[in-house]
Amino acid sequence: MTVTALGARTDGAVPPEPERYSDLDLELDLRWWGAANLLTAAQIYLLDNPLLHRALRPDDVKPRLLGHWGTSPGLTMLHTLLNRLIRRTGSQVLVVTGPGHGGPALLACSWLDGHYSQVHPEVTPDLAGLGRLVRQFSTPGGVGSHAGVHVPGSIHEGGELGYALAHAAGAAFDDPDLLTVCVVGDGEAETGPLAASWRLPAFLDPVRDGAVLPVLHLNGYKISGPTVLGRSSDADVCAFLASQGWAPVVVAGDDPHQVFRQLEHALTQAHATITDLQRRARSGEDVRPARWPAVVLRTPKGWTGPRLVDGVLVEGTWRAHQVPLTHVRDDAGHLAQLQSWLWSYRPDLCFDAGGRLVPELAALTPEADLRISASSRAGGPGFRVRPLPLPDLAQHALDLPAPGVVRHGSTLPLGGLLRDLLAATGRPDGGGDFRLFCPDETTSNRLGAVFEVTDRCTQLPVLPHDVHVAPQGRVLEVLSEHLCEGWLEGYTLTGRHGLFATYEAFAMVAASMVVQHAKWLQLAAGQPDRTPVPSLTVLLTSTCWRNDHNGFSHQGPGLVDTVAPLAPEVTRIWFPPDANTALVVAEQCLAGRGQVNLVVVDKQEHLQYLDLGQARALVLAGAAVWEWAGSEDPDRRPDDDPDVVLAAAGDVPVLEVLAAAELLRTHVPHLQVRVVAVVDLLGLLPPGDHPAALPTDRFTELFTDTVHVVFAFHGHPRTVHPLLHGRPDADRFHVRGFTEHGSTTTPFDMVVLNRMSRYHLVLEALRRARRVPDGADRLTALCRDQLDRHRTHVVEALDDLPEVRDWTWGSPPPPEEHP
Amino acid sequence: MTVTALGARTDGAVPPEPERYSDLDLELDLRWWGAANLLTAAQIYLLDNPLLHRALRPDDVKPRLLGHWGTSPGLTMLHTLLNRLIRRTGSQVLVVTGPGHGGPALLACSWLDGHYSQVHPEVTPDLAGLGRLVRQFSTPGGVGSHAGVHVPGSIHEGGELGYALAHAAGAAFDDPDLLTVCVVGDGEAETGPLAASWRLPAFLDPVRDGAVLPVLHLNGYKISGPTVLGRSSDADVCAFLASQGWAPVVVAGDDPHQVFRQLEHALTQAHATITDLQRRARSGEDVRPARWPAVVLRTPKGWTGPRLVDGVLVEGTWRAHQVPLTHVRDDAGHLAQLQSWLWSYRPDLCFDAGGRLVPELAALTPEADLRISASSRAGGPGFRVRPLPLPDLAQHALDLPAPGVVRHGSTLPLGGLLRDLLAATGRPDGGGDFRLFCPDETTSNRLGAVFEVTDRCTQLPVLPHDVHVAPQGRVLEVLSEHLCEGWLEGYTLTGRHGLFATYEAFAMVAASMVVQHAKWLQLAAGQPDRTPVPSLTVLLTSTCWRNDHNGFSHQGPGLVDTVAPLAPEVTRIWFPPDANTALVVAEQCLAGRGQVNLVVVDKQEHLQYLDLGQARALVLAGAAVWEWAGSEDPDRRPDDDPDVVLAAAGDVPVLEVLAAAELLRTHVPHLQVRVVAVVDLLGLLPPGDHPAALPTDRFTELFTDTVHVVFAFHGHPRTVHPLLHGRPDADRFHVRGFTEHGSTTTPFDMVVLNRMSRYHLVLEALRRARRVPDGADRLTALCRDQLDRHRTHVVEALDDLPEVRDWTWGSPPPPEEHP
Repeated sequence: MTVTALGARTDGAVPPEPERYSDLDLELDLRWWGAANLLTAAQIYLLDNPLLHRALRPDDVKPRLLGHWGTSPGLTMLHTLLNRLIRRTGSQVLVVTGPGHGGPALLACSWLDGHYSQVHPEVTPDLAGLGRLVRQFSTPGGVGSHAGVHVPGSIHEGGELGYALAHAAGAAFDDPDLLTVCVVGDGEAETGPLAASWRLPAFLDPVRDGAVLPVLHLNGYKISGPTVLGRSSDADVCAFLASQGWAPVVVAGDDPHQVFRQLEHALTQAHATITDLQRRARSGEDVRPARWPAVVLRTPKGWTGPRLVDGVLVEGTWRAHQVPLTHVRDDAGHLAQLQSWLWSYRPDLCFDAGGRLVPELAALTPEADLRISASSRAGGPGFRVRPLPLPDLAQHALDLPAPGVVRHGSTLPLGGLLRDLLAATGRPDGGGDFRLFCPDETTSNRLGAVFEVTDRCTQLPVLPHDVHVAPQGRVLEVLSEHLCEGWLEGYTLTGRHGLFATYEAFAMVAASMVVQHAKWLQLAAGQPDRTPVPSLTVLLTSTCWRNDHNGFSHQGPGLVDTVAPLAPEVTRIWFPPDANTALVVAEQCLAGRGQVNLVVVDKQEHLQYLDLGQARALVLAGAAVWEWAGSEDPDRRPDDDPDVVLAAAGDVPVLEVLAAAELLRTHVPHLQVRVVAVVDLLGLLPPGDHPAALPTDRFTELFTDTVHVVFAFHGHPRTVHPLLHGRPDADRFHVRGFTEHGSTTTPFDMVVLNRMSRYHLVLEALRRARRVPDGADRLTALCRDQLDRHRTHVVEALDDLPEVRDWTWGSPPPPEEHP
Repeated sequence: MTVTALGARTDGAVPPEPERYSDLDLELDLRWWGAANLLTAAQIYLLDNPLLHRALRPDDVKPRLLGHWGTSPGLTMLHTLLNRLIRRTGSQVLVVTGPGHGGPALLACSWLDGHYSQVHPEVTPDLAGLGRLVRQFSTPGGVGSHAGVHVPGSIHEGGELGYALAHAAGAAFDDPDLLTVCVVGDGEAETGPLAASWRLPAFLDPVRDGAVLPVLHLNGYKISGPTVLGRSSDADVCAFLASQGWAPVVVAGDDPHQVFRQLEHALTQAHATITDLQRRARSGEDVRPARWPAVVLRTPKGWTGPRLVDGVLVEGTWRAHQVPLTHVRDDAGHLAQLQSWLWSYRPDLCFDAGGRLVPELAALTPEADLRISASSRAGGPGFRVRPLPLPDLAQHALDLPAPGVVRHGSTLPLGGLLRDLLAATGRPDGGGDFRLFCPDETTSNRLGAVFEVTDRCTQLPVLPHDVHVAPQGRVLEVLSEHLCEGWLEGYTLTGRHGLFATYEAFAMVAASMVVQHAKWLQLAAGQPDRTPVPSLTVLLTSTCWRNDHNGFSHQGPGLVDTVAPLAPEVTRIWFPPDANTALVVAEQCLAGRGQVNLVVVDKQEHLQYLDLGQARALVLAGAAVWEWAGSEDPDRRPDDDPDVVLAAAGDVPVLEVLAAAELLRTHVPHLQVRVVAVVDLLGLLPPGDHPAALPTDRFTELFTDTVHVVFAFHGHPRTVHPLLHGRPDADRFHVRGFTEHGSTTTPFDMVVLNRMSRYHLVLEALRRARRVPDGADRLTALCRDQLDRHRTHVVEALDDLPEVRDWTWGSPPPPEEHP
């Protein structure tokens, strides 16, 4: 291989200082690297004897060899040289490692720098602890094989590839003193989310944000095939990165001396370029378009491991991906090869007899709080979450004369809340610790009040007819749900707050990321060094019922089905029926820690029901009877059950349930109907299955134990049934919801298409009620007639329908007027 | 704006022929374009009077203005010039339109070329039909506003952005005579999946594949903010495309005459370059790396629409995104402006009095089958799906001496089936009509037999130590589930067959694509011109229960929860318990039409149960009693119910259920236990809710109406409950499954962690059985003891556990042996 350097910008970069990185420095680094590689391989292979204090025996070797060697030596090299950079510059460095298979490499480095033993005292910084370190790796009851939440200093799990650079970006936003180094593997670089992430320079402000230094680590192979970038020329790779706003340098080779020198130089140059760029920007110079340094690092897969195994080339090929020597326990040749491989790192020269690094190597570790594995951004010492300065909701709440008579956009007051939060969290340098992330829908989602105090962020040219677009903007709009989600994840994992607002249907684009983030939060709760981070809140708006203007592709409530089965301790799903409830839910989510919140509320005008106090009470309770909407006898005995319960979760379902209740009250006034609003969906789960579960007696107070419940639900009807399993007689719940019928049509046609209209609910209620009331036949006929006329009209008339929207609470819903 | 042309390769391109595109040609094209723009705007605005045969009145205007003008004029221009290219060259052109908001533009072009009226005879090719065309658009009972399945010639719904180029690629694979033109909007270009799609030249073979000509249509804005590429320099955009393997040309401007000439020239050049490149490659010349033409087209958003509205600039800005004039019905000024805007296209010169294009414009339409909207690849005339030559499964099935005694990799025989399918579908030019798509896991997923007959495809350099990598390979491996899914979608939508094989957890990455594809298939069934296309089959392997080596991030069965609520007529979810059942399921899926199939089967060695005949019977039935595994009295009366039912769906659940059944048979032999295997999950749904639903009497035969059922399920337990709602007493089903507890551990520890182990199932069965059998206490104690010892051992011993894997059917499961 050759060593080349292409495209490095030199403005402001320090001149090369050959004497800065002396031969002695290099030799020490190579020994530290060897120690890290030894411990990496030892974790994969050994139950004991990691420093080879005696010849390896078969029973030193784990019976099941799990772990990935291939990517690890590159990661340990980078760690070694970043340690040097940190010692020299005092920089605060966060490392995000995309190649998750490099878990043992990060654990090795973390143990070597001493922090691992501080977090996990049972893994002592000596020979005994070293034994435990290697034994626990990929072992039942031990630690997993990937970089993840159990790796100190990490904010990133490298299991599902694609999000490293988005997480790094999230960490960098609004943290001007931080240098985030992000390793991207060439496998991960083929994913869509990662491919989109390269556009970060269009959004990263050199004044108030920190820097991201990508290290594109190409070793040419995935599991068994070559990679696209691994096989692309240096010229193409560099042209690609340059076109995205980076100034790449290539470091490539297989001679450690040469590659260490080149990489040390590249990192020093990059650091100097970044420092200079930030200094100039922060002193008022216009540095846009900033070209940020990036490193393309080409090293052999499985570097320094066995070159040939059984005569077949392994080092530098896909065969080094996982475990290069596979039959160590039962093949004496393999065992001997492992012994000589591990010995090649000279444990005798790296460690003392007690298993501690020799002093000259220990001295290479940065001072305590600057150690990579102790990063205060990743939950290490000094990690703090500043509580959000949440404003008094009374400033934002709607005043309502009565329930169900005022129509208002349900997200508009939330926009005001977000505006005030942005204002209250702003810093003089333009940064802050609260951000809004959105795929260009902030205005569409009626959260545009935020633009009274900030703008959309772009580092690209701003044109005269742009509105609310500026380099200093704190609203990040990019048409990628992956980036919005990933940036917010990185932002909250480093202790800041934010909201991801998106069209409900396309939140599904980031579904797998939400799953992985929930897994992270679930595991974080069990780690001694992890303080709870701000919750991740996704606002799902422009919902299925009101995407009548965009049609079927925009009608998808599926993210709820993805999140509901995840770990209960980290998941909440909210269906505020109106604006004030949305405010209270948002307040609770934004103040929360360690959870994933889905908040589903439509952006269009809807009837408003609850004043702020009532909204608070509803959110606190999770679900409540709306006495005013039902027709139960006020003088009944407390344990008298109604004839039927109408329940709803979601704004449109609540509207239809209320209209159904009015029809029933008007036409069959003697039927005892109860109306229940559910805002905290997972509260339906039985006690023990979720922290928010309604207590049994409370559930019975709402739904009784035996009366049939007609439940109008925002999402798929069958989302609700499994939540109710374990509640008394779950079969009596009859759920209507979105059954995947949609089109470009009217809101009312949508509820008819999906059989959740007021008329459908009335028909179901009459069918299910404990008794047949006087007038039931007439009301049944009325409902059927309405539905027949509606359908005929839609199918045959090809006309714009009236939207049945003039109805308010307190009068019977008018029949549809058809010409 | 300026007109520039950068980076065009000239080898083999025809020299410019100014006389080829005469002034008369241009004038005719501009008029055809005007007609298309008129019909586009008319669809958005008008109920009637589209050709302005009288002055517009408020009641000509739709009460609700829905649709998107911004992107449309660029699309109609491209359509106009592609028509010319097709007439001149006779090329078969498929157009994939990423900007889905351009629906009315495509509908306009489709009506103008006459094909729309052939598909929809009620929309006649005359004034009456024109009236219906505009009236039906975005109207209840009419057609949706996006490009989608209702647009003849489309294989792509542009609602959820990101997949246009992947669909185009899928259409191009193995179709050497096809030119697929793919329009990518600058909003869509910010998405991850689209960003990854640009790497297509690394996978597109100029010999056996067709060409893809991307047209990156930049008009600078999304809904309300600028776009990254819209604000990037031509140099950066071209460098980006060039780095991915394209040879871009920029066409930019706002003067129609100028832009038409430039684009006509660019398309002609591109066509010539492609033709030359393919000719050379097909005559044996090595043209790699092929640089494929691409067009960067910069035109104003809302081009030719209202420039100023109420004094504010609209044309060329984000304000033109949707409906430029919003108050046409109640603002006389807006109405007048609409009138003059529409009149600017001179309907009087484009159409005759009967609403037909004047002859000189009608003559611009390509001949019948070459019309874009009639593409035979998109379901138009001539669309054919060649049935797959499925081999006799007997060649691949495992011979089994008895159920549950042989261990074998459950996907290995499937690999053989795929190999034979690849062989049987191969063409002399290296193409075919069956492909395997996978994120570099073909070997890992034990489908490596395919490499006996083909290779992984790459157009990049192949190195000596690569294995099974070649430019002619028919296995497409790219580490992007988005690309695998999108390519397969494009491939099947154009009538070919394939399989997407992936790690179960990371199938979630493409979840939203599966949702959108299911929506497409659902709607396609209602379109007169759509023949059912081959089903899309996703093989989910390396499953949660056996990703013990990779840990929690790799343990996610969530895609089932995404697909289960989708339209029943297009969804099937399969859980084959063993290799032979997997073969039968695969055969059924690969032969199927118009559905999304999920097939969940693990790749590791598992016990094998069914011979081929039994497997066929199980798949046909959907679920069956395994008499041999239960302990019901063979002499019982037919209507005697067992004491408890053990049911399972999935390979690991079946194993645990069988082990539980053995424990019960051994220790409480008088308990009547029935074992039911479920392979077709959605068959659990009640009749009427799914075509595969088990009939009521059949369900009762399996599960009785009253006996408790302990159900071991592969995925989340609460996936099963909603399917059973509506069945007799659904509350009696007690489901165990994956409850989001995972780690790097042993397979047996996984089932213990998630409380689905044989011991948990026995305990649940004893708790739920209709009677307490003799020996129940002792068996309960045994199970509890086993679980206690297991847990203690895992947590305290930090040791590799025995894997409880030596058990086979016919002997009681041995207790775990702990040292």
